Amino acid sequence: MGFRDECGVVGIYGAENAAALSYFALTSLQHRGQESAGIAVSDGNKIKLRKDMGLVSDVFKQGHFETLNGNIAVGHVRYATAGGRTIDNAQPFMNSFKNGSIALAHNGQLVNHTKLREMLEDHGSTFSSSSDSEVILKLIVRKYIENGGHLGTPNEEENNSELNQQRFVEAVVQTAKLISGSFALCIMTENMLIGVRDPNGIRPLCIGGFDTPASQALNHRDGGQFILTSESCAIDSVNGRFVRDVEPGEIVVINKDGLRSIKYAEDKKRTCIFEYVYFARPDSVIDGISVQEARYRMGEVLAEESPVDADVVIGVPDSGLGAAQGYARASGVPYGMGIIKNKYIGRTFIAPTQKERENMVFVKLNAIRSDLEGKRVIVIDDSIVRGTTSRRLVQILRRAGAKEVHFRVSSPQVKFPCHLGIDTPSKNELISSNHELEEIRKEIGADSLAFISLEGMKKAFGADSFCKGCFNGEYPV
Amino acid sequence: MGFRDECGVVGIYGAENAAALSYFALTSLQHRGQESAGIAVSDGNKIKLRKDMGLVSDVFKQGHFETLNGNIAVGHVRYATAGGRTIDNAQPFMNSFKNGSIALAHNGQLVNHTKLREMLEDHGSTFSSSSDSEVILKLIVRKYIENGGHLGTPNEEENNSELNQQRFVEAVVQTAKLISGSFALCIMTENMLIGVRDPNGIRPLCIGGFDTPASQALNHRDGGQFILTSESCAIDSVNGRFVRDVEPGEIVVINKDGLRSIKYAEDKKRTCIFEYVYFARPDSVIDGISVQEARYRMGEVLAEESPVDADVVIGVPDSGLGAAQGYARASGVPYGMGIIKNKYIGRTFIAPTQKERENMVFVKLNAIRSDLEGKRVIVIDDSIVRGTTSRRLVQILRRAGAKEVHFRVSSPQVKFPCHLGIDTPSKNELISSNHELEEIRKEIGADSLAFISLEGMKKAFGADSFCKGCFNGEYPV
Amino acid sequence: MGFRDECGVVGIYGAENAAALSYFALTSLQHRGQESAGIAVSDGNKIKLRKDMGLVSDVFKQGHFETLNGNIAVGHVRYATAGGRTIDNAQPFMNSFKNGSIALAHNGQLVNHTKLREMLEDHGSTFSSSSDSEVILKLIVRKYIENGGHLGTPNEEENNSELNQQRFVEAVVQTAKLISGSFALCIMTENMLIGVRDPNGIRPLCIGGFDTPASQALNHRDGGQFILTSESCAIDSVNGRFVRDVEPGEIVVINKDGLRSIKYAEDKKRTCIFEYVYFARPDSVIDGISVQEARYRMGEVLAEESPVDADVVIGVPDSGLGAAQGYARASGVPYGMGIIKNKYIGRTFIAPTQKERENMVFVKLNAIRSDLEGKRVIVIDDSIVRGTTSRRLVQILRRAGAKEVHFRVSSPQVKFPCHLGIDTPSKNELISSNHELEEIRKEIGADSLAFISLEGMKKAFGADSFCKGCFNGEYPV
Amino acid sequence: MGFRDECGVVGIYGAENAAALSYFALTSLQHRGQESAGIAVSDGNKIKLRKDMGLVSDVFKQGHFETLNGNIAVGHVRYATAGGRTIDNAQPFMNSFKNGSIALAHNGQLVNHTKLREMLEDHGSTFSSSSDSEVILKLIVRKYIENGGHLGTPNEEENNSELNQQRFVEAVVQTAKLISGSFALCIMTENMLIGVRDPNGIRPLCIGGFDTPASQALNHRDGGQFILTSESCAIDSVNGRFVRDVEPGEIVVINKDGLRSIKYAEDKKRTCIFEYVYFARPDSVIDGISVQEARYRMGEVLAEESPVDADVVIGVPDSGLGAAQGYARASGVPYGMGIIKNKYIGRTFIAPTQKERENMVFVKLNAIRSDLEGKRVIVIDDSIVRGTTSRRLVQILRRAGAKEVHFRVSSPQVKFPCHLGIDTPSKNELISSNHELEEIRKEIGADSLAFISLEGMKKAFGADSFCKGCFNGEYPV
Repeated sequence: MGFRDECGVVGIYGAENAAALSYFALTSLQHRGQESAGIAVSDGNKIKLRKDMGLVSDVFKQGHFETLNGNIAVGHVRYATAGGRTIDNAQPFMNSFKNGSIALAHNGQLVNHTKLREMLEDHGSTFSSSSDSEVILKLIVRKYIENGGHLGTPNEEENNSELNQQRFVEAVVQTAKLISGSFALCIMTENMLIGVRDPNGIRPLCIGGFDTPASQALNHRDGGQFILTSESCAIDSVNGRFVRDVEPGEIVVINKDGLRSIKYAEDKKRTCIFEYVYFARPDSVIDGISVQEARYRMGEVLAEESPVDADVVIGVPDSGLGAAQGYARASGVPYGMGIIKNKYIGRTFIAPTQKERENMVFVKLNAIRSDLEGKRVIVIDDSIVRGTTSRRLVQILRRAGAKEVHFRVSSPQVKFPCHLGIDTPSKNELISSNHELEEIRKEIGADSLAFISLEGMKKAFGADSFCKGCFNGEYPV
Repeated sequence: MGFRDECGVVGIYGAENAAALSYFALTSLQHRGQESAGIAVSDGNKIKLRKDMGLVSDVFKQGHFETLNGNIAVGHVRYATAGGRTIDNAQPFMNSFKNGSIALAHNGQLVNHTKLREMLEDHGSTFSSSSDSEVILKLIVRKYIENGGHLGTPNEEENNSELNQQRFVEAVVQTAKLISGSFALCIMTENMLIGVRDPNGIRPLCIGGFDTPASQALNHRDGGQFILTSESCAIDSVNGRFVRDVEPGEIVVINKDGLRSIKYAEDKKRTCIFEYVYFARPDSVIDGISVQEARYRMGEVLAEESPVDADVVIGVPDSGLGAAQGYARASGVPYGMGIIKNKYIGRTFIAPTQKERENMVFVKLNAIRSDLEGKRVIVIDDSIVRGTTSRRLVQILRRAGAKEVHFRVSSPQVKFPCHLGIDTPSKNELISSNHELEEIRKEIGADSLAFISLEGMKKAFGADSFCKGCFNGEYPV
Repeated sequence: MGFRDECGVVGIYGAENAAALSYFALTSLQHRGQESAGIAVSDGNKIKLRKDMGLVSDVFKQGHFETLNGNIAVGHVRYATAGGRTIDNAQPFMNSFKNGSIALAHNGQLVNHTKLREMLEDHGSTFSSSSDSEVILKLIVRKYIENGGHLGTPNEEENNSELNQQRFVEAVVQTAKLISGSFALCIMTENMLIGVRDPNGIRPLCIGGFDTPASQALNHRDGGQFILTSESCAIDSVNGRFVRDVEPGEIVVINKDGLRSIKYAEDKKRTCIFEYVYFARPDSVIDGISVQEARYRMGEVLAEESPVDADVVIGVPDSGLGAAQGYARASGVPYGMGIIKNKYIGRTFIAPTQKERENMVFVKLNAIRSDLEGKRVIVIDDSIVRGTTSRRLVQILRRAGAKEVHFRVSSPQVKFPCHLGIDTPSKNELISSNHELEEIRKEIGADSLAFISLEGMKKAFGADSFCKGCFNGEYPV
Repeated sequence: MGFRDECGVVGIYGAENAAALSYFALTSLQHRGQESAGIAVSDGNKIKLRKDMGLVSDVFKQGHFETLNGNIAVGHVRYATAGGRTIDNAQPFMNSFKNGSIALAHNGQLVNHTKLREMLEDHGSTFSSSSDSEVILKLIVRKYIENGGHLGTPNEEENNSELNQQRFVEAVVQTAKLISGSFALCIMTENMLIGVRDPNGIRPLCIGGFDTPASQALNHRDGGQFILTSESCAIDSVNGRFVRDVEPGEIVVINKDGLRSIKYAEDKKRTCIFEYVYFARPDSVIDGISVQEARYRMGEVLAEESPVDADVVIGVPDSGLGAAQGYARASGVPYGMGIIKNKYIGRTFIAPTQKERENMVFVKLNAIRSDLEGKRVIVIDDSIVRGTTSRRLVQILRRAGAKEVHFRVSSPQVKFPCHLGIDTPSKNELISSNHELEEIRKEIGADSLAFISLEGMKKAFGADSFCKGCFNGEYPV
């Protein structure tokens, strides 16, 4: 509660109704971004693009799918920041260039895009947005053009596009090696789909296939049907079959000849731990670890590390529920629902006048009195960022009669801002950056407060291959 | 899953920003109806009304509250049926009449409105909608006019409206005695707020007050500040204090002299049991019973009545979760999350083309494989209406690896349609109306199936004052 | 320029696509009102209504006509006042009542609606708007109910509606006799269309028929096809044939037996002269007089009454053009275009910031320099209301090089506000009400100024049967 | 009637409220394009852009001008074709590049853009639209980058932008020499405004200045205030002062040092004659010739060339009116209005059902019977393209009682499609391309038919420096 992810991406290859499948998949990734939505689709000859501000179901209406025909697509959802709420930055980005077109959807954040942009500008590139994703797109095209000499030009025998596929893939590989930071990319041309994951695999990307009934609809020559997407829940939503994760440092190229893997960099896996803690849906599996299972485990470890006598343990919806259930299992304290989150609070919910602004939290969250009255309550949240929501939450629980409120957090203290794709407040707004634990406890008004330890985190996952930059300031890039 | 409630109502008296508080309260009642929303507000001289199709936050924007000033308001949310999706039927209804204006918000359904409408038409009344709620409004006005003779006309000394308040209240009492069926009403004039609940109390209605800080904003002569609303969660949302339920057969009149109670009929309480099973939010308390507590209890009784050896018990979100947790408590089978419901599926979500229609359920619901794979699963839903959703649900659980699926339902078999405010399919579409238990089990594909018994329901609540018409065909009216 | 008419009305009977024809007709009457538009249509059993704020082509989209099927319709366009811009006052008004439904469209203004509304309220009527047109509708229904006793109830042998047509027509006649002011009404039930014009015929209403090809589409038993409408240009727009005007004090009843005329009051014709001067389209013929011909004649008389040596005569678009051409003919001074009016200035045109407000007129009107430079210019406008536009106009002409500007007005001085359907400013804003001619000339900056005389007006029309209330304060009602 | 122009452009320099002035100017150029509208504005540091589909007054609302602050702006309106109705092609185009940003608005059409695009693509450029205007923008940037070496980089002493102005102007000059076709361009950077007109001056572009009161608002160091725009009527609309036309082959550079002229190519003036015949507003003056005066003259010559005995001469609104008035002057046949064009027919006007499609013309145009009945009528239109509208027009005139209809056209026969910025049908749809005069006369049903001759055209203008490609197939480029 307080973090927000950048985006969700999807790519579809070989399915007759690629845009419709993308629509379903993006709806399943909607929790990763509600600001804008877009789908680019190719019928083999031409890429058509639709993108706009708003939820997936607001941007796409029945009529749009008539023109969005084709069997290759990439799609994108983007989250809402205060500043950059503008159509210019909505994705996918699409451009035409020598012999073809490209559409690109990006989840992540580059750390060297300023330098790359200057380099491109020195060669005459122009930009229509401030997005680092546009830099990636232009870089691929530049590499493709530069490769022209030694890699040859397309010839008639290839396929209906004149694009030189081999040369294009090479350009993507070169680009992947040049860019630094976090990136999960879905890239398409008129007749190819390419997935790219950064060497640290900071943002997730996985591969799915279709057996039935989608394969019956197969109208593609001799290749298969594939889906690339940020989370496996999107594969389920189109009734697909999970195949595997794209590996850190891997590029997958999907075309009429099937799927081909290119390892362009050493796998130095450092998955963002907040994908498990907060962003991803509990029904997703990322890099072999079930998100829901991970949350149970974090709760269990938290119970071992920071036990407390209590009558009920509750979780802050939605991402705190799994940890609360794990805590209950491990501690024996009964699990209760305790808190309700209003699911109709969307982008359009407002404070009618200035006066009501501070009471908006009472509309968003409410306590279930019968679960709490006269009880000693353990409440589990996924994180504490600024501390303001936590303070309000404790108030709500006490208003509902909680005798004691013990606050437990299923992630370590966030002390450093993220530079790899998460919208965090600046360091001086991070309450853990400037306050001792006891100060924070007083600030939020809890009777006790504990965070899971970094060691505990490692124990919960049975592994340590995660980016923990926001906890200890050690970033993989 | 399959039922839908008619509406939610709210009334505010004495609060400076009555429309803003109504906006918050209606947002908290949004689960009771997503088709249309409306607020009428009085500044003491004039009632202004805004209503439109859509969610509360779509209908009301910042600018609207500037004109919606005043300290008395009534508000309404209405649910979406296929047929009547038209602005004509949106509420509150507002009309001007002799000496004043009236706005009315109604949750429920009359059984004698046809006869009453004919009677009114015989006297020259005209109607702008097909709604039974408009009949109530016109009836009140007619009674008010008829009372003119013996109850006297308003005089200057009263207050700034010329409406004869005593005569108006009498008209409401007379009307409440004439109408039959289910009704929870919030009625306002320029300077009064009135709440009415039918003698069976089929739909809920409760009273809240404000201590601080709303009372500091009090700009009313010498009366208090009140809120009337369908569910207590709306009182929490405006940081109010729950006072009590309006009793079946009671009218509460709120004006500058405070709150006055009129018992116009004997209390024959028969609350709709589905308010607890499905409609109401778990954080609401209705007629002294916590909704969440009731759900836990139904799950506990279900565990006693229909135990089964299993590895995990899960609930169908959102209303099945409480019963599942209760079942887990009573049975000792571990509770797991198991199912995720996509919270971004709203009115605008569509099947992109005909082909995708039947796969939409995979976007709406998904299973958490790590909770289910290789396990014997008990799944608790609140009801089975047509059976189609249940069948899809069992498929989804098996797709995620469930070894056995034991279906448990926290309400008895629904065999009769509702005539008192719930949108149910016709009798021949109700699967329990035409099929034996074993047939239904086969139809939905579960390994076992059980419903809670009517006796068990009684035991769970420790009371029997409920309408059970949809179970046994015995309606209170 | 400065006056605005209330509305335009249309009624269609017997044409398969009544709503579509109404759409065309209302588009042709759009100059009479741009605030709201509405069409009610009956398929013989049920009246469906669609109305909303905006232009006809904004309110009605392709999809709407699928549900607006039927062969009887009434339609309405309403003009934009600052105050009453609200959907509540949009027309047609529609209500259901004993045995049937009624939809009503009204152009005009009642002078006794307050008294009538009180009378109706005393009998229990309620109102959903502040419109005097709703009073007419309720009055008709009340009379219909009161007539129930001696005129009998409907019986099965009549037609598919149970409405007693004879009784309903009687109610309309009684109502027409009770209401006072200006009214041109199109009224429909499920199977009748009725037109009503007030005894002074202040607002126009005429009858058209269809020969081919609409008659080929005739699916009605044995009656004909008719259109009632404010202006004959709307008849042309649906390729109909002008039949005659509805006479002042006449009611026309159209049903399966054809058209029947009822004279309910003596014809005391006092057509609003501004229909010719300003409101009506030049291609309309009202009460036997061509609007364009009338404008030519007013210009001719103006030339006789107020000649001046000049090089060119120009008209202020659009309604001043005819008079300018007439002036040119009679005077021999060459006609020139001289002024251009931007036709893209609609309801959505704004002053970007406060600063630009006073310069908006330069966007709306511009002079043609080549017509004016170095010339003595006669400019003809249809009226002067506040004088502000006239002053700006003279500035624009001088900016374009006019050596002399002689202002001529094709209507007499407006000294009194209208109470019969035209939106005029209050008396103290009417420049002619408080200023001598010479003062006005100075105020607007012209070299000379003249208005047509009341005698000249009479001469131009060859008749004197007009309402001249705004000139001399003598109103027919 | 049948032709449509591409666009209108505007540029503002040095005016505090540049976006607001652009809004007014674009509204005055709205007749040149109704598909999309856009304004880019610079505050000296940053260019902000807003563009969308729709009319100027639909795209820009009050709130937008708060963010569109700055004193340099370019704006654009674009006309609606069936195919390319997409936001991708809306203008101005804006891109960031090395050291700065550029926004560009273009009226016209290139003939060598395919070759230039390929050349740019070979160097790695990518395109987000199919517009030839984007090619111009990218070309300028490429030239700017290439000039980097010998022209030096920007230094701190310049101004707040780091853009090297001198180098940028050089790039514009190089680009203007490379592109071929018709182009009137308004180009801006953060602190410069540049106007470019092609060597043939096919599309118009003129310069205006501001005296008062805009100059009082001057907040610019020491330069003046300027407006560049397609038509002089837009200068009038912002109360500016016409200075002169940009000459064919001229570039004007406006910055803090005032206006500087660069002649980059020989002036081979070939203004598009249809600017006078049809596109431009009559109150505009293009290349020293008043549009309205030109229309009078064409009518006069037409009267000399093709006289006929008649009772009235009328013009087809709006562009045929001037020629009709000229014809009347020269022939002595009285001028009458005769035809009314419904001014509320916009983009949203539809045929409600297929059936009504062919009758839509009766809503768009109507005849004034009193001007025509029993008369021999001369009707002047500006052109005949396909002939369908002309046939309907003759029908309408005959329906209104015209005894004879003599059709006269104020432009020669259009036999060839335009490749320089006008949307014409293909050659085989041009009725004059495949039919003899007599065949056309029969086709449209007129009693006689005549076009002005090419010689007559020359005589009317007293000059011959026009593009006459659509008449004789001889294009200047």
